Amino acid sequence: MRAVVMRNKQLVLDEVADPVPEQGEILVRTLACGICGSDLHALKHIEKMVAAARDGGAPFVLDPGRDVVMGHEYCAEVLDLGPDTPAAVKPGDRVVSMPISFRGGFQGIGYSNEVPGGYGERMVLPALTALQVPNGLPTEHAALTEPMAVGLHAVNKARMDSSDAALVIGCGPVGLAVIAALRLKGLRPIVAADYSPMRRQLAERIGADAVVDPAAQRPVAAFEHAAGGRSAVIFECVGVPGILDQLMREAPRGGRIVVVGVCMEDDRIRPMIGINKELAMQFVLGYTPDEFAETLLALADGRIAVAPLITGRVSLDGVAAAFEALAQPDAHAKILVEP
Amino acid sequence: MRAVVMRNKQLVLDEVADPVPEQGEILVRTLACGICGSDLHALKHIEKMVAAARDGGAPFVLDPGRDVVMGHEYCAEVLDLGPDTPAAVKPGDRVVSMPISFRGGFQGIGYSNEVPGGYGERMVLPALTALQVPNGLPTEHAALTEPMAVGLHAVNKARMDSSDAALVIGCGPVGLAVIAALRLKGLRPIVAADYSPMRRQLAERIGADAVVDPAAQRPVAAFEHAAGGRSAVIFECVGVPGILDQLMREAPRGGRIVVVGVCMEDDRIRPMIGINKELAMQFVLGYTPDEFAETLLALADGRIAVAPLITGRVSLDGVAAAFEALAQPDAHAKILVEP
Repeated sequence: MRAVVMRNKQLVLDEVADPVPEQGEILVRTLACGICGSDLHALKHIEKMVAAARDGGAPFVLDPGRDVVMGHEYCAEVLDLGPDTPAAVKPGDRVVSMPISFRGGFQGIGYSNEVPGGYGERMVLPALTALQVPNGLPTEHAALTEPMAVGLHAVNKARMDSSDAALVIGCGPVGLAVIAALRLKGLRPIVAADYSPMRRQLAERIGADAVVDPAAQRPVAAFEHAAGGRSAVIFECVGVPGILDQLMREAPRGGRIVVVGVCMEDDRIRPMIGINKELAMQFVLGYTPDEFAETLLALADGRIAVAPLITGRVSLDGVAAAFEALAQPDAHAKILVEP
Repeated sequence: MRAVVMRNKQLVLDEVADPVPEQGEILVRTLACGICGSDLHALKHIEKMVAAARDGGAPFVLDPGRDVVMGHEYCAEVLDLGPDTPAAVKPGDRVVSMPISFRGGFQGIGYSNEVPGGYGERMVLPALTALQVPNGLPTEHAALTEPMAVGLHAVNKARMDSSDAALVIGCGPVGLAVIAALRLKGLRPIVAADYSPMRRQLAERIGADAVVDPAAQRPVAAFEHAAGGRSAVIFECVGVPGILDQLMREAPRGGRIVVVGVCMEDDRIRPMIGINKELAMQFVLGYTPDEFAETLLALADGRIAVAPLITGRVSLDGVAAAFEALAQPDAHAKILVEP
């Protein structure tokens, strides 16, 4: 099959072996797959990512020297079931799934040497994790179940109540997913900050009550104006070195920083600032199966309106260019690959 | 009066002006004052401490170029009341207080250019915050109310329940205060780690269920052996650069790190490790008035047994040498200054 392969820090469109479903798996045809900021990071920093995973006890690791077909935000059509595989889905059904595979222990689909991700024409998914797309939900919206579930999980981990309010720093796809989840849970007001006018506009369309350009106003000042004395829960959705130090410096006393942005590099903080203000920091990753399923239903019910997020579509031969376009924050939110 | 003055990064025994109580204050004679690790840090890193306080929104700052009489863990005898000052205490009473003063806005007693701390013969304290030492509690134990309250506050901020268990990293005075508070609250088992045999012994005497020498065994391995599947709440009581990175690397998935140790320098962390394991970090500082009062009562009732912690006593002319002795982790826990 044709697939975009990560090889020697490049994306190469190539022919690779067709995946073959084993027992307990289903074979699917990729219909649409979102490009994630983590994929852009991985292309540049795959060694650091693997080292941090090894050091930090992540459940799986990959060999950066071998081919990887990335892509973990997919909607696909079932083609076939593996041998002796009972499944709740049948050929022709559209499905989404959490991007995990149980081959050889545990694999992250999209970050694996063993199974291809959604930047290829076909994939094999565990039958157990595949969820049928509810009738009527467009394929391209269903493909965003995964990134939107990241937002729901971050909001759940923040354990907010009515005495809290959210400040979302960074309105790329992760920040937008957090805003959508805050809105879904009725946790308002929501203040969102981004330097990009396009992203601020998207933040408003997806549910932010107020947006702020950090070049014009301190986000924390805008938050305090809107929050009516509520405690600050700051969602860090930028993921670059230096942002934690900056947020610790600017956070109000007692603030909680939820680290959703994925910074793959070393970072510097000043513990004294955290101590002086008794800050808390919660790092989050992924989502639970329940959160993934809840997100799919919220999309199908129209309670999360993702249409504004989709700003581009490419075929496999456009993936490398799409990665470059996504590095410009004002050009795109989410680009879908349609193999 | 005589006082040990921090001047040009040195401790100098000198004559300074007698403090005079203003309205709302009481004049006291210092009976005993503990030497705190923060004072050792401050003597070396006062500029960084002030810069971090300025940057981080601490409620007070001092001028490192001017004299400071440190000492904030004191028990004192009331000598006189300020003019027109109603007070619940009278001359002759022994008192402790939270080390804060409201002169010129807000001062930290022991870190102030305006009011002297407990390394001098006399102090002025706000009448409102002075608590009478319950009958029978020895002066030198009462002086430890302040450092023991730090442990109680850290434990309260950790919001532990029966599904959690504690690993205390570092068994200096801060770690020992945390162990005492965990024991006070019935939060067991308590695993404590320190390279020093003397400190491990103190940890056991004050209430640790198991102690571990990190040179011989990974503290997290000892914790997991003792914790019976409970979630890890790791109290960081060391406060040196690098310890957060190390604890993030070693923490079990979902672990919570409570940062009680005061690291006054910049520090480096790897956010990816926090993300991969969904770690949480809670920075803590000080205590509430209720926690301070609760600690005094727990000392008076014998529910916190601090006697083992007191490993030395000096007069004012021994303070500089005591600072040097305390820099050796195997020599002392708490040295009391008796002016």
